[in-house]
Amino acid sequence: MAVTPKMNESYLLHHYPFSPFCRKLRLALKEKGIEFDLYEERYWERRHDFMIMNPTGKVPVLRSKNQVFCDSQAICEYLESAYPDRPLFPDDPLEQYEVRRLVAWFDEKFHKEVTSRLVNEKLLRHVQRKGQPDGNSIAVGLRCLRFHMNYLAHLLQATGWLVGRRLTLADFTAAAHVSCIDYLGDIDWREEGYANVKDWYAAMKSRPAFRPILADRLHGYSCSPHYAVLDF
Amino acid sequence: MAVTPKMNESYLLHHYPFSPFCRKLRLALKEKGIEFDLYEERYWERRHDFMIMNPTGKVPVLRSKNQVFCDSQAICEYLESAYPDRPLFPDDPLEQYEVRRLVAWFDEKFHKEVTSRLVNEKLLRHVQRKGQPDGNSIAVGLRCLRFHMNYLAHLLQATGWLVGRRLTLADFTAAAHVSCIDYLGDIDWREEGYANVKDWYAAMKSRPAFRPILADRLHGYSCSPHYAVLDF
Repeated sequence: MAVTPKMNESYLLHHYPFSPFCRKLRLALKEKGIEFDLYEERYWERRHDFMIMNPTGKVPVLRSKNQVFCDSQAICEYLESAYPDRPLFPDDPLEQYEVRRLVAWFDEKFHKEVTSRLVNEKLLRHVQRKGQPDGNSIAVGLRCLRFHMNYLAHLLQATGWLVGRRLTLADFTAAAHVSCIDYLGDIDWREEGYANVKDWYAAMKSRPAFRPILADRLHGYSCSPHYAVLDF
Repeated sequence: MAVTPKMNESYLLHHYPFSPFCRKLRLALKEKGIEFDLYEERYWERRHDFMIMNPTGKVPVLRSKNQVFCDSQAICEYLESAYPDRPLFPDDPLEQYEVRRLVAWFDEKFHKEVTSRLVNEKLLRHVQRKGQPDGNSIAVGLRCLRFHMNYLAHLLQATGWLVGRRLTLADFTAAAHVSCIDYLGDIDWREEGYANVKDWYAAMKSRPAFRPILADRLHGYSCSPHYAVLDF
């Protein structure tokens, strides 16, 4: 049984590289300039010490010397109040609402309909040696992906960002999910209707906070050729 | 097809009486003294006008003259910033984090393991005339309920509230779920280990904001004898 390592930085993040919730939190931490170490948690193995820390058995879990933090959104909200510099939320309450609505949209609806179908069937099955992917579930995931890409294109029309005139946690959340799907090569960026989504995702990829995510690789499962390319 | 009614108050809440997410929001609105009308939305019928307002197809949806609000937690956070009197969150960032963690605990884990199994199988199947309940799913729900009741008892030990020294959105969220289960009569309040959970729930039930919830009835499906009794 793996033993949870000691911490060098003030925070240790128990994560899995291809979890969109962990990617959202890695982006939020990096953008805020908070230093952290990473520990790769194969959460489906339900390691005893990990289950004690978080009985939901989910990643991410963020640890400081005195505290264990669970639930990616509760953690992001905490980081926003504890480290208000480089805000992840806009000032206006109505725009804040829209950020939280979209975070829930991507973490619940997009995740259920797209990310979990594609990533779980293709990538996690491979890691967990669970046999052949369920082609039917993948087909549904790909169909839903088109609907969501069109919704992204619609949302980005006004300003190029998801909410208001600047980048917020809504963009990081959406990009975290898109990046998992893009690792698999399931987005056809040449589609006409996706032009502004492509511009937006290129801007997201070019941020320093995104670099470690573009460096994620899974042994035995190659990423799409354009996954780490900034000008794709 | 039902037509969405006009609004008398500043807000109209599209809700379903036995949805814990709607009950959480009704409690939050009442506690803050915000006036609203109710519209009973049979969300599973996916009414056209409702799906346009909220493509997730979920309740609650809160409407003002100029805005549609979706996602119960995004709405609660909005109400907290727009109506800061009678706060639903504590002042301390770490306690705020714990409130949000527990809201997610009840709205995700408790809902998936308990509320959705018991309410969907017993009550919604009845409403939707979907035939006999799945006894196996109910058995799992009841087993999980014991685990969660013990967790509630553990959390309430320190102060009698879920987080810190006073009532927060965590208590309203948990009580919203507990109230749905208690309508069905699935909680045996005589269990020894539940004494402090019973005290806490009695305190929740005695709040004026809880009264309309205790008056909810489903035609053809009676509530448990103690459902609306304050001294149960």
